[in-house]
Amino acid sequence: MEAKAWVREIPRKQDNLSEWYTAVLLKAEMVDYSPVRGCMVIRPYGWAVWEAIQRWLDAEFRRTGHQTAAFPLFVPESLLQREAEHVQGFAPQVAWVTHGGDEELAERLAVRPTSEAIIMPMYARWIRSYRDLPVLILQWCSVVRWEKATRPFLRTTEFFWHEGHTAHRTAEEADAECRLILDIYRRLLEEQLAMPVLVGRKPDSEKFAGADWTYTLEALMPDGQAIQAGTSHFLGQNFARAFDVKFLDRDNTEKYVWTTSWAVTTRLVGALVMAHGDDRGLFLPPRVAPVQVVVVPVRAEREPAVLERARQLAAQLSERFRVRLDDREEYTPGWKFNEWEMRGVPLRVELGPRDLQQGQAVLVARDAEGTRQPVPLDGLVDRVGEELEAIQERMLERARAYLAAHTVRVEDYGEAVQLIRQRKGFVGVRWCGDTSCEDRLRDETGGSPRVIPEEAVNGACLVCGRKANALVYFARAY
Amino acid sequence: MEAKAWVREIPRKQDNLSEWYTAVLLKAEMVDYSPVRGCMVIRPYGWAVWEAIQRWLDAEFRRTGHQTAAFPLFVPESLLQREAEHVQGFAPQVAWVTHGGDEELAERLAVRPTSEAIIMPMYARWIRSYRDLPVLILQWCSVVRWEKATRPFLRTTEFFWHEGHTAHRTAEEADAECRLILDIYRRLLEEQLAMPVLVGRKPDSEKFAGADWTYTLEALMPDGQAIQAGTSHFLGQNFARAFDVKFLDRDNTEKYVWTTSWAVTTRLVGALVMAHGDDRGLFLPPRVAPVQVVVVPVRAEREPAVLERARQLAAQLSERFRVRLDDREEYTPGWKFNEWEMRGVPLRVELGPRDLQQGQAVLVARDAEGTRQPVPLDGLVDRVGEELEAIQERMLERARAYLAAHTVRVEDYGEAVQLIRQRKGFVGVRWCGDTSCEDRLRDETGGSPRVIPEEAVNGACLVCGRKANALVYFARAY
Repeated sequence: MEAKAWVREIPRKQDNLSEWYTAVLLKAEMVDYSPVRGCMVIRPYGWAVWEAIQRWLDAEFRRTGHQTAAFPLFVPESLLQREAEHVQGFAPQVAWVTHGGDEELAERLAVRPTSEAIIMPMYARWIRSYRDLPVLILQWCSVVRWEKATRPFLRTTEFFWHEGHTAHRTAEEADAECRLILDIYRRLLEEQLAMPVLVGRKPDSEKFAGADWTYTLEALMPDGQAIQAGTSHFLGQNFARAFDVKFLDRDNTEKYVWTTSWAVTTRLVGALVMAHGDDRGLFLPPRVAPVQVVVVPVRAEREPAVLERARQLAAQLSERFRVRLDDREEYTPGWKFNEWEMRGVPLRVELGPRDLQQGQAVLVARDAEGTRQPVPLDGLVDRVGEELEAIQERMLERARAYLAAHTVRVEDYGEAVQLIRQRKGFVGVRWCGDTSCEDRLRDETGGSPRVIPEEAVNGACLVCGRKANALVYFARAY
Repeated sequence: MEAKAWVREIPRKQDNLSEWYTAVLLKAEMVDYSPVRGCMVIRPYGWAVWEAIQRWLDAEFRRTGHQTAAFPLFVPESLLQREAEHVQGFAPQVAWVTHGGDEELAERLAVRPTSEAIIMPMYARWIRSYRDLPVLILQWCSVVRWEKATRPFLRTTEFFWHEGHTAHRTAEEADAECRLILDIYRRLLEEQLAMPVLVGRKPDSEKFAGADWTYTLEALMPDGQAIQAGTSHFLGQNFARAFDVKFLDRDNTEKYVWTTSWAVTTRLVGALVMAHGDDRGLFLPPRVAPVQVVVVPVRAEREPAVLERARQLAAQLSERFRVRLDDREEYTPGWKFNEWEMRGVPLRVELGPRDLQQGQAVLVARDAEGTRQPVPLDGLVDRVGEELEAIQERMLERARAYLAAHTVRVEDYGEAVQLIRQRKGFVGVRWCGDTSCEDRLRDETGGSPRVIPEEAVNGACLVCGRKANALVYFARAY
């Protein structure tokens, strides 16, 4: 009965993914709408997922010699204009500060849409010799891009990210940095978020404004639409020239540095929710779940020892896991089970008077609600650890199977058009590299070229029949 | 010889604290000026200190049941205007966004100077019943206040902080929250930053715009000037009324919540530098130093085993401490000693061929450069831990002695005026509470009332001779 009450409030996922998504986010208290158009409030339960992502990434960044810093929120308009493609790409979306107090500013300040234009002038000051290279710096912050249509996490006017900005002696080193970061992102997505991705380059039409090329990771949502999950940009010497960032090389000549930039954003939290949730609500992978284990005492009102033991158990589990003890008296166990399922807690531990007699507790995994596993209280902590790992593994396997089933290569243009239109996932087509062929496929399908994997291709362009030089996956996308 | 080179570049601290301060910050690469007036770049070495502060505070906040969230960067003008005193206090300093892309906004958006006005509307939505209370939320972010005269860390247009915003059922609970936070701040300052403080209330003239009262922590800089190190505001029901934040209480009547807000900022990093540095540069307390121990191999070019052992030692120490191995070949040991002293690393470990023979290393504490302590390599890790604790303790003791020597109570108005003018530290005067008396002392001294400690006072107001009702410490201030 209570279970149905929850289900009634959350639309069925397969009926309307978009409504389901918003309902789940609001009900699970991950996010809320704010009084500022297009900006969201990330509530503690949502922010905790982002913090888990931050913690893992920060450890990886430290391990690979990156350092964290903080650059100003504002970018003077003249700096934003230095790199021609960059300003064209971002200016239409910029929020402009024109007044400080009562005073009108002599020059408008952009609220950073990205920070290349405020960071490069600093690098120009800091870098003198090849000994100063590489510079491997990132910052965690929010950025602002004026969006017309927004959705919590997936597309908002303000969003949170880290942005890495590195400078190198050679093009090869800069490209290796891009790939190193790409691999960290891939592992974040697969190992932490249980989201397998297609990895490769963007076509030129989709690259970062000011980059020579952009690497991307693309995940697939349950409606067959792609979502860009992270990017790593090889900026060549474009920003170095625009901002005059030079160094004296070993051969005693002055050269421009080679730079990169890269980011993942709070969009990942939205993608995660969409990928793993179900009709009962959220389902969060154990490695990033704010609450990994909920301990629910059952019939504790009849048997006070139950509550006492549940408290001990929760304290014991807390040494290794993120644990919540739900000892609220005003709710029934059934109500609590449903609430924590809805909030996506991967593992529940139930403890009732009979369990206590038998020296056991009952484990129930979020993805195996029918299966109640009695487990001896001795050794429970290790068993919980194993179970969380198993859940994480199952989530990844399911996601891998889904991605594999929705990644196809086609040999026929008509088939490509149909599959992309129908949102059947990633549709791989051979492509000559011409914009006109790309545009035709875009126009006829509403899809876009998402990613060019690193592999040789033989055969003809599916659009024009000339020699193909790349495989490109098209999809409709968020 | 090399030591003198450093000294030449950093002015003597006692000659000109202000020039010393800027020179040290720049040279130690904690901070740099940015292309945006009044905004600084916090470089990795400076940011790492702030991160150490964040880590400690986050653990305390978690322990006390607080949660982290993220609210929008922007505050619509109409919301900022809701609380009358609040808008008067902050509007003159606000950076205004007037355009998004090419479009002029219908309503200006303030870049948040503080977030009460954007958070309270959310609390109005989230809080229904006494069961929803208390709400204990904070966020880590930057805020912007248009400043005319700025100084790195101490006063900048953009600065970083956390801001806590809590809502409670009763005034007593809200005040207890203010005091709980105040005590966390006091321990942060004393135990982590080795900065003892005076604690108490602000006089009304100095309280937060919109607060009923403000608690403050005040530290003393080496020039005898005070610096506000943290604040905790009891906001009463002012914001609850302005934003209509009500709850249904146990007695089934609707009531306004009681709220608090509180913060410490990156200003602490500046205060820390000023408090502990000396003519050789920075001196960072071990608990927040980005590098706690530097290992310097000596004459390793003659004896390769030295470098090998130094590496092992550094790896071993890294398991418990933040360690840097300085194995650069292009610099002499003497140059390295000076550099790491300048950067404030609290403890140096030297290892040369003779040390190696004798199975020892040499410890040199940043505040005891003359004292070289030979220590057996066996058990070195524990010894380093003890030494770091001892350094932390000495720093606090020195700071305590300085504060005690510069905190006086006076019985004579003329003496008070003289001491405040001469920047002799905190000058305690009995006060009737009248603004006119306060203003007279301000006008005659250039100082301000910093803090009213929680203690009973007997006697006459030093200004007007009427009955005093408070002791107030005056000082010139940053």
